[in-house]
Amino acid sequence: MTILAFDVFGTVVDWRGSIIAEGQARWASLGIDWAAFADAWRGGYQPAMEAVRSGRRPWANIDTLHREILDDLLEQFGVTDLSQDDRVHLSRVWHRLDPWPDAREGLARLRRDHIAVTLSNGNVSLLVDLARHGDLAWDAVFSAELARQYKPERAVYLMVAALFNVAPEEVTMVAAHTQDLLAARQAGLRTAFIRRPLEYGPDGTPEQPADFDIIAADFNDLADQLDG
Amino acid sequence: MTILAFDVFGTVVDWRGSIIAEGQARWASLGIDWAAFADAWRGGYQPAMEAVRSGRRPWANIDTLHREILDDLLEQFGVTDLSQDDRVHLSRVWHRLDPWPDAREGLARLRRDHIAVTLSNGNVSLLVDLARHGDLAWDAVFSAELARQYKPERAVYLMVAALFNVAPEEVTMVAAHTQDLLAARQAGLRTAFIRRPLEYGPDGTPEQPADFDIIAADFNDLADQLDG
Repeated sequence: MTILAFDVFGTVVDWRGSIIAEGQARWASLGIDWAAFADAWRGGYQPAMEAVRSGRRPWANIDTLHREILDDLLEQFGVTDLSQDDRVHLSRVWHRLDPWPDAREGLARLRRDHIAVTLSNGNVSLLVDLARHGDLAWDAVFSAELARQYKPERAVYLMVAALFNVAPEEVTMVAAHTQDLLAARQAGLRTAFIRRPLEYGPDGTPEQPADFDIIAADFNDLADQLDG
Repeated sequence: MTILAFDVFGTVVDWRGSIIAEGQARWASLGIDWAAFADAWRGGYQPAMEAVRSGRRPWANIDTLHREILDDLLEQFGVTDLSQDDRVHLSRVWHRLDPWPDAREGLARLRRDHIAVTLSNGNVSLLVDLARHGDLAWDAVFSAELARQYKPERAVYLMVAALFNVAPEEVTMVAAHTQDLLAARQAGLRTAFIRRPLEYGPDGTPEQPADFDIIAADFNDLADQLDG
C-alpha cells in the first residue's frame, strides 16, 4: 500500500482535446480556432499562478484565474459579444474535461491496493466536478487550494504526507510533467511519470521524463509496475 | 443538486457497536467490558477537543486525542501490560468502524443528484480509512483538520461553502446530533437530522431533534425527502 498523489490537468484528463471538442460542438458560432484557443488558455495558466506564488497578488483560485485569462483571450480572438452567462459557462469547461481513455479503469485498479488522491492546482470544487463528470473515484480530493499555495511550492507536496501522518517518501507523486515531479522529489516524495504523448496535441512536443522512480505508459502500466 | 456535508461518527458509522464487536472478538483477553469502554472512550472526546477549541493546547488531531484517551482508559480499566504496538492498533479501531446498514446504499443514491462530502472532526486519514473499510464513496473528504478547528466552531461549517463557492444556505449539514446541527444552522447552513436510535446502545437515550429543515429516519429516507 502506497499513497499516490495525482496531478490532474494533463495527467488524468485531456484538457486540450476536451476544450477543442466542446468549443467546436457548442461554441462554433464564435468562429474561433479552438486548438489555438485551448493552447493560449493553458498558456496563461503558469503566469497567472506565478503572480500568486510571487506574492504580487493575494490568493486566487484556478476558477478565478481561468476566468480572467478567458476574458483576455476572448478580446484577443476578437469575441466581444459573449454574454456574462455564456462566459461563466465557457470558463467552466475546465470542470467538464474528459479523462484519458485508461484513467477511470486504471485508477479503480490502483485503488484496490493503494490510496489514490488528487494533488492538483485546480480548486476543490473543480476537482469534484471532474471526478463526477469522468466517473473517477478518488480516496480524497486534495488541492493546492487547501494549502493556499500553488505547486511547485514545497508546502503543497508536504501537505499530503502530513495529512496521512507519513514521511514524504511514503507518498508517490504521479504526473505527466517533469517540473511537477522534480519539485515533488525535492520535497522528498517518490515520483511516477506518466507518458501523455498527446497532451499538447498531435503536433506538440511531448514531455520528456527525468530519471524518476517510475516511468509508465499509462495508469494500467503504473499498476503493473507497482504491483507486478 | 445540493451540497450535503455529513457528520461521520454516529451519523454514518456505528462507533459503539463496532468498538464492542472488535473488542470482544480481538481483545477478549484484556477482560474489559467493551460497552463501558466504548462509552468512556467516546466520553473523553468532547473534553479533549475542548482543550484545543479553548486554546489550552495547540492543534492536535483526533488520532492523537483518541490515543491519549485510550492510554488513560486502559489504566482506569486496570490494563497495564498492553504493548505499544497493540495500543497503536487498538487506538486505530476508529479507522475500522462499520457503517450503519443503510449508509452505503443511501449515500450512493444521494450522490446521483447531489454532492456528498464528509464534514467530521475525524482527521482526513481516518475518514479515508473509514470510507475504504465501509466501501463508502464520497465526492470529497473534508475534515475539521483542514480548518485546524473543531466543530462546532463556525469556521468549519463555512469552509464547505467557501470551497464550493456557494452561500452557506446552499450547503445542508447532515448529522445525528442536535448540537452539531444547531451550530451549522447558526453558521447559515441548512440542516438534516438523521435518527440513529441505537448510537448510544439499546439502553442509551437517543438524540432528540430540534426543528431542523429535514428530519429523516435514515439515508434512504433523506433521499426520499430531498428528491420526493
